Amino acid sequence: MTIVHAFAASEASDPLQPFEFEAESPAAHEVRVAVSHCGICHSDLHLLDDEWRMTKFPFVPGHEVIGHVEALGSEVQHLSEGQRVGVGWQSGSCMTCEWCADAQENLCQKKAATCVGRHGGFASHLTVNSEFAFPIPEGLSSETAAPLLCGGITVYSPLQRLNVRHFHRVGIVGIGGLGHLAVQFTAALGAEVTAFSTSESKAELARSLGATHIVDSTDPAAMKQAKNSLDFILVTATADLDWRPYINALRTNGKMCFVTGARSSVDVPVGVLVNTQKTITGSTIGGRSVMTEMLDFAARNNIKAMTEVLPADQVNEAIQRVRNNDVRFRMVLEM
Amino acid sequence: MTIVHAFAASEASDPLQPFEFEAESPAAHEVRVAVSHCGICHSDLHLLDDEWRMTKFPFVPGHEVIGHVEALGSEVQHLSEGQRVGVGWQSGSCMTCEWCADAQENLCQKKAATCVGRHGGFASHLTVNSEFAFPIPEGLSSETAAPLLCGGITVYSPLQRLNVRHFHRVGIVGIGGLGHLAVQFTAALGAEVTAFSTSESKAELARSLGATHIVDSTDPAAMKQAKNSLDFILVTATADLDWRPYINALRTNGKMCFVTGARSSVDVPVGVLVNTQKTITGSTIGGRSVMTEMLDFAARNNIKAMTEVLPADQVNEAIQRVRNNDVRFRMVLEM
Repeated sequence: MTIVHAFAASEASDPLQPFEFEAESPAAHEVRVAVSHCGICHSDLHLLDDEWRMTKFPFVPGHEVIGHVEALGSEVQHLSEGQRVGVGWQSGSCMTCEWCADAQENLCQKKAATCVGRHGGFASHLTVNSEFAFPIPEGLSSETAAPLLCGGITVYSPLQRLNVRHFHRVGIVGIGGLGHLAVQFTAALGAEVTAFSTSESKAELARSLGATHIVDSTDPAAMKQAKNSLDFILVTATADLDWRPYINALRTNGKMCFVTGARSSVDVPVGVLVNTQKTITGSTIGGRSVMTEMLDFAARNNIKAMTEVLPADQVNEAIQRVRNNDVRFRMVLEM
Repeated sequence: MTIVHAFAASEASDPLQPFEFEAESPAAHEVRVAVSHCGICHSDLHLLDDEWRMTKFPFVPGHEVIGHVEALGSEVQHLSEGQRVGVGWQSGSCMTCEWCADAQENLCQKKAATCVGRHGGFASHLTVNSEFAFPIPEGLSSETAAPLLCGGITVYSPLQRLNVRHFHRVGIVGIGGLGHLAVQFTAALGAEVTAFSTSESKAELARSLGATHIVDSTDPAAMKQAKNSLDFILVTATADLDWRPYINALRTNGKMCFVTGARSSVDVPVGVLVNTQKTITGSTIGGRSVMTEMLDFAARNNIKAMTEVLPADQVNEAIQRVRNNDVRFRMVLEM
């Protein structure tokens, strides 16, 4: 019998408390992972605060998980005991709908999330569908790779699906947990990267991660100068911005892609869409195939989340730091 | 010396009057076309009314031209005297910018329009850049093909560029001059066509042109039933509609494309873009390569504009009929 030592909130926005429960044996297609690291994502806080009205309490957050396979279900052939794996936001899908059959499990209507309606990765152990436990390439360290499982796939998938390539000029809006990964992936695939940022220190960081141009998005003159300069803009910021200057920063045929469910809407003049053939779209995490590709590409290109690591028993301090946007750029718990 | 017998307005919104001028000899890369047919497009009316503040008077409208080559400039090798050709909205581009070099002359910043700043096709003769005079395949009749040069390319180009294919379900919004062509092209490429229409008689016509489903866009219940049903929606309507029900009619990963510069803007919730990966975009006419492809595809598939033909001297009656939306679906002048 395995006892899971987790951290859970009893009610919305409560501090997390130690929380123990008995691990069930893995079902036929499941694996039990002994968690070594788990990133903290803003989605964990939205769930903790029950902002999306779907959190069940006691709530164990965590969906940027890395650990080692400890026990395998009877049907699991492709993983082995002791293997290092990662688990992201998604931990299940129907495997039979048109999207699952087309390597787009992220679009499955029956997708399961790692810490929605089940206990997540702020825990000593996590039992999940083995199809959503991804081998972590050797070159990646667990503490810098954990955030790739959610933040990494979120920014990598649209670059791949929307065919962003080496000859493109790409803007990254928001240099934070997602944006600093997007800068690295975009630079690694050979594109020219422009970072839109509001702070000088983040601009410096963006440069060190591969951005060649910085635009101060609070400076109207700088935004105006960026007009017609970019083939692709990835919006990782969650704030409600005035999107017009960004749409103007796209070149003819340019595409703008949102990856965070900011609350706002984007208002685009139809005439601009028609005359310049610009595109506004969005993207949500990524399928299993893209996840594997992203991890491999990250390992080959030394792409790492910039993380701060705290021991699991400082989870409430860690959460507070994320709430305060006081982390550069991703907080990871060592379990 | 060739005298051109044209029809021109002296001032904005004036009736057209006979207007004669001397044809210049074709420059090295030009051809002079003896016009046999010219369609009337809504853009001609916008120009006639000087709505876009760029019309020069006397103004000779007309940019859906078919005729025969009467004289060739010294450098024109690819056309011959007597050959039937068509000219659309665009009649020139720089031929050297990145867009021209990439078969997207329609995006050239220096593009010239057939009846902007020069005399258009409501005339016995039209002298144009030979690169924008397209041979008309034998299978097409001039009176049903003239509108393909502007209306046809406008709806065909996005189907091609945005990769609409036989296994897609496609909605056409607005069954008019553009929409009735879009239904035919979309059905011919093998897709399942849904026509959004407000009138029963247009719905019947759409069916006869290849639509298998009709949605009455004025019926909220019908619009609701169309939810999540379409991979692609082509908006040919110029009216300011509530776009939300149409965005909802898109399936996951679906794309909506505007082809007319309606005055409005489209407002899209960012969360919808992210969660469903939907795309909002636009398209403007098409490049030379796509024009040739469209004409060939139309000929092979017997795609015809439904036209009413009036003799050129009834041009003012013809214009009034277009103004009143009293044409099914495209008015063509016989010169």
